[in-house]
Amino acid sequence: MIYFDNSSTTKPYQEVMDSFRKVSLEYFGNPSSLHSMGAKSEKLLFQAREQVARLLKVQTNEIFFTSGGTESNNIAIKGAALMHRGRGRHLITTEIEHPSVRESMEQLKELGFRITYIPVDHNGIININDIADAITDETILVSVMHVNNEIGSIQAIKEIGQLLKKHSKILFHVDHVQGIGKVPLSISECFVDLCTISGHKFHGLKGTGALFIRNGVKISSLISGGGQEWKLRSGTENVAGMVAMARALRLTFQQQEKHLDKMIKIKDFLRRELEMIQGVTIHTPLNQSAPHILNFSIKGFKAEVFVHALEEKEMFVSTTSACSSKKQKASSTLLAIGVPEDEALSAIRISLSYENTLEEAAQFIEAVKETVKRLREVMK
Amino acid sequence: MIYFDNSSTTKPYQEVMDSFRKVSLEYFGNPSSLHSMGAKSEKLLFQAREQVARLLKVQTNEIFFTSGGTESNNIAIKGAALMHRGRGRHLITTEIEHPSVRESMEQLKELGFRITYIPVDHNGIININDIADAITDETILVSVMHVNNEIGSIQAIKEIGQLLKKHSKILFHVDHVQGIGKVPLSISECFVDLCTISGHKFHGLKGTGALFIRNGVKISSLISGGGQEWKLRSGTENVAGMVAMARALRLTFQQQEKHLDKMIKIKDFLRRELEMIQGVTIHTPLNQSAPHILNFSIKGFKAEVFVHALEEKEMFVSTTSACSSKKQKASSTLLAIGVPEDEALSAIRISLSYENTLEEAAQFIEAVKETVKRLREVMK
Repeated sequence: MIYFDNSSTTKPYQEVMDSFRKVSLEYFGNPSSLHSMGAKSEKLLFQAREQVARLLKVQTNEIFFTSGGTESNNIAIKGAALMHRGRGRHLITTEIEHPSVRESMEQLKELGFRITYIPVDHNGIININDIADAITDETILVSVMHVNNEIGSIQAIKEIGQLLKKHSKILFHVDHVQGIGKVPLSISECFVDLCTISGHKFHGLKGTGALFIRNGVKISSLISGGGQEWKLRSGTENVAGMVAMARALRLTFQQQEKHLDKMIKIKDFLRRELEMIQGVTIHTPLNQSAPHILNFSIKGFKAEVFVHALEEKEMFVSTTSACSSKKQKASSTLLAIGVPEDEALSAIRISLSYENTLEEAAQFIEAVKETVKRLREVMK
Repeated sequence: MIYFDNSSTTKPYQEVMDSFRKVSLEYFGNPSSLHSMGAKSEKLLFQAREQVARLLKVQTNEIFFTSGGTESNNIAIKGAALMHRGRGRHLITTEIEHPSVRESMEQLKELGFRITYIPVDHNGIININDIADAITDETILVSVMHVNNEIGSIQAIKEIGQLLKKHSKILFHVDHVQGIGKVPLSISECFVDLCTISGHKFHGLKGTGALFIRNGVKISSLISGGGQEWKLRSGTENVAGMVAMARALRLTFQQQEKHLDKMIKIKDFLRRELEMIQGVTIHTPLNQSAPHILNFSIKGFKAEVFVHALEEKEMFVSTTSACSSKKQKASSTLLAIGVPEDEALSAIRISLSYENTLEEAAQFIEAVKETVKRLREVMK
């Protein structure tokens, strides 16, 4: 099997599963319980938080555990908007955000907030001047994703952070879900106030995520109750899941150190080889793009047909983001960067993990060539 | 070890862990992915949903997966209130709800909703006439817990449902977290519109839960994005967690059939034996209470001291609900049923699972007697 759909989800590391199992069975106490079983769970939860914080180079009390990236994005955006609505009701984001950001914004629009969507160029990059121009006295939040989940373009988070630093009323949220472990981001140097990560995108488990909230930044709770996570996110903590996520993050950072060069080589190889196939257009920009995502179209084929042809060879890629793949609509990111609709409907996304090899990439290219040839013959 | 804190959380069944591991490693595809790995995950998710629905005797498309009981309660209450705020802004609940219900209500109060808290009698039971009297043209939701998490009192959900059936504008939400698998509840016969369950309370995993939403009932989404769970709850589904929860529920229902009598015997034994200890007051009502919860005070001891004394003997009980146990406040449920504050601060909650035995109960009673004696000597 060749699994090239790691931006949809990843296979959990064996060690991550082992941690999850051990904590679930041996330390199952409720961290809120007063007795020693609760205290042991609480300690593990604290250690997981400490580890995630250390890896992100932030303070332990700035890490809030959630059920995943979507929840973190929702809390960050809605929580900030609801908390600071008295200061203003204008939010800024980009045209190529993940649905969990876009939909959160749209829900807020219904509640009377005004949203500015910053456009992107043909490489999927925003112009920072557009943010500067959009800012008004009413602006309370800017949300920009680090790495785009469909084409892999990287936004200049540091420059945006420096711009926003001059506006003390504006919070800066970064959806770092696709960037973490692949493209370094210094939360402090970029002046990020809120930052989202998701466990299952880096070989942790589904249902686990975190939100970084800078010390001093206040946002409203979406899920209230027993007051867990410093009252931001109530509900019995998924201790085993968070321990597993912390371990997955540590292992991913180790892999990044060891294998980032290999990943870049694989992506370069795939890009070069795909470009040579007749009818192929690469949508991922050559520069300012993440090492693990490559998006391309093959003229004349619906993406769906191609995905299924490849899966017969036990090779797994995506049409677009997993979230949108069944809606049979063209990728909004591709449309935003100016790809014509019919070409966008042919788009295939390859997304790598550090587990993938150059051999797999070579086999994949052969399979693509063979499939193109076969399908073209069928269609004649 | 004697674990009598099962209302805080339970130990996952071995089979539940096995399912979780197998699905996590072998079927890790994103259910939203178009390829066959996604389809396999989606099928497992569907089967889990079908199984939960069958066990609850409802339709498959009425089960929405969430990250737990707290999230389900938040979605039910806030989602109903926000969706139907145009019809009215009055909500009714009881004085003894779980914090996730109470806090959801309090957050809505800040948004302009009016909340009526129905009082309980000394047994922790509400008077249905109080609900009838509280209903106005503005009422859009009534939320009543099935089994109280601190003293185990059972509300007359069927009678409340019959009353509310006459008011077609009012939705009926039941927090069934402590009841499920212990006290039967027919969702359809009780005319329940929204019903919350939580996986880790019946030997499933933390971070898993579900919300039943009757077909035709519309509520707003709190966590939006990719549109999972019929757009009610976005985010990559925790497939392995939901498969594990479905299995835990099936096993729990089997245990209930086999071992409910044993559980009742253990509770009766504990009640009888505790009553004979000087200074003990039982707070759990004799009738209309769940088979697994027994709440009592021992005069003159702070609950905390007692919990720690018992944990030295590897026996685990709770002071109050896990959520509130560290706040060193008296249980709001006990205060609501008229227990004086100093007595409430002495309250201990035993909560059983089907794994517990009569032998454990006997050992526990000996330990309590011995501890009472020892502590009384120390205090002389």
